[in-house]
Amino acid sequence: MTEMNGFGPENYSILKYRVLYADTDKMGIVYHSNYFRWFEAARGSYMRRRELPYTITEAGGTQIPLTEAGIRYFKPALYEQLVDIKVWVSDITAVQVKFAYEVFFEGELLIRGFTNHAAINVGTMRPTRVPKQFEDALNRRETLCGDPYL
Amino acid sequence: MTEMNGFGPENYSILKYRVLYADTDKMGIVYHSNYFRWFEAARGSYMRRRELPYTITEAGGTQIPLTEAGIRYFKPALYEQLVDIKVWVSDITAVQVKFAYEVFFEGELLIRGFTNHAAINVGTMRPTRVPKQFEDALNRRETLCGDPYL
Amino acid sequence: MTEMNGFGPENYSILKYRVLYADTDKMGIVYHSNYFRWFEAARGSYMRRRELPYTITEAGGTQIPLTEAGIRYFKPALYEQLVDIKVWVSDITAVQVKFAYEVFFEGELLIRGFTNHAAINVGTMRPTRVPKQFEDALNRRETLCGDPYL
Amino acid sequence: MTEMNGFGPENYSILKYRVLYADTDKMGIVYHSNYFRWFEAARGSYMRRRELPYTITEAGGTQIPLTEAGIRYFKPALYEQLVDIKVWVSDITAVQVKFAYEVFFEGELLIRGFTNHAAINVGTMRPTRVPKQFEDALNRRETLCGDPYL
Repeated sequence: MTEMNGFGPENYSILKYRVLYADTDKMGIVYHSNYFRWFEAARGSYMRRRELPYTITEAGGTQIPLTEAGIRYFKPALYEQLVDIKVWVSDITAVQVKFAYEVFFEGELLIRGFTNHAAINVGTMRPTRVPKQFEDALNRRETLCGDPYL
Repeated sequence: MTEMNGFGPENYSILKYRVLYADTDKMGIVYHSNYFRWFEAARGSYMRRRELPYTITEAGGTQIPLTEAGIRYFKPALYEQLVDIKVWVSDITAVQVKFAYEVFFEGELLIRGFTNHAAINVGTMRPTRVPKQFEDALNRRETLCGDPYL
Repeated sequence: MTEMNGFGPENYSILKYRVLYADTDKMGIVYHSNYFRWFEAARGSYMRRRELPYTITEAGGTQIPLTEAGIRYFKPALYEQLVDIKVWVSDITAVQVKFAYEVFFEGELLIRGFTNHAAINVGTMRPTRVPKQFEDALNRRETLCGDPYL
Repeated sequence: MTEMNGFGPENYSILKYRVLYADTDKMGIVYHSNYFRWFEAARGSYMRRRELPYTITEAGGTQIPLTEAGIRYFKPALYEQLVDIKVWVSDITAVQVKFAYEVFFEGELLIRGFTNHAAINVGTMRPTRVPKQFEDALNRRETLCGDPYL
């Protein structure tokens, strides 16, 4: 399905992020779980740039909680670095969406990860279809707005 | 009102807590905002030991969000220390509750803080009275259960 | 000393921030301690815009850990809001710096806070003077760079 | 190698944990990245119960940062639940250690995860061998101390 929709790294979005002291631990590097917080920030930005903020998805009665996630740590990010968080949809089916992520500092790959999400109905808390509106947004290939606050 | 009800340090509860790597930052000490997370853990334990878990308060239609908080840092807590988080109610009125906290390591005071909470009605999100049940629980002076998981 | 140096709200910096799901709790609002993380982001940005990133301060042998902090919650921030975090130096002495913060959404004040910091020597971990370089940076009154990534 | 050393679920440790408000998000469930924090708590406890606290490993000149991690979400943990975090070493080689985790509430499996760690020399920050002392600790099969604070 990835190929059908043309999802993949060529259809990505990048969020810039300045590493906080709060992200670090006593090893002097970013604490391992904090990258998932960055992934969330990039994922939210990716959808807003396609004009489908997640608040709209939720208001429409659908949530997409995680069912699985994974991460590989190649090199740690450090305090005050301005990193690039790259995100794209690597797969989408009728009931699931999979996002992929890469974190770079000055062009060097630091981190690679993914998150799988299943659509659920907010009212019943049971599985449902990924909203059509959501899939349409993901299929939009236009140049993404460079607004840093999106 | 503090005096009337006899609230104060003599009516406290202590929660033991093992400092995590996740709590630290690159200065090698606990990141300053994480103590508030510890305060929450101690506050929840304090109420459960009085047989009024916060889930019951919420189920009864009342939440007690913070209106103010403060903290003094005397000496930082460090990774893997087993600290004592002491908590007590320092004041209570018809519409507010104030908790006080102290963190110790091997008897030495590291941190002192407080949080003020206002009662609100979950449905209307407007101010309401502190539940009678809540005040009754706070007035219980019995020896607190030593169960570490409460 | 505030008046002598002309520090105050007129010499502020604003950092825009998009509220994450990670910031929220089950009350549906931002969890109370997460605002301190935002304060740190704004404080770091404030110093970088004065061309003194905190990594430089640390490399020079000085750290400025917190000695005290306080916060008032007027109205909670919500998921996906784009808030303004305003920060300025409200006081500075030979050995301490005090920062003040306000968080706004669409012009409405949500949160007000402060953090006090004492200068310490990284090697000895003992109190030291606030670096001259640091005070110079704070005294710079030029229009701040609007670069969102600073 | 797992079989050679007899590592596996039969050689596990369990840490009890009370879910905090701080762990939750506006979906009313535990925010997905917070489980890694729980995993760290359980992993530290596991080593202390084998009389090798991580501070000793670090003091000996070795750190074991993560190289990879993964997690599957079967059912979310909720506020104030007292969950069991089960941890064991699922593999160990000369240069890496792999931990596996399961989170249960009232006997029901909620979460399954793993973390891979590579040994590095604190001084050179280069790969090194997993300390012998560390492997010895992991091979200890005695009944684990039930001390909740370990």
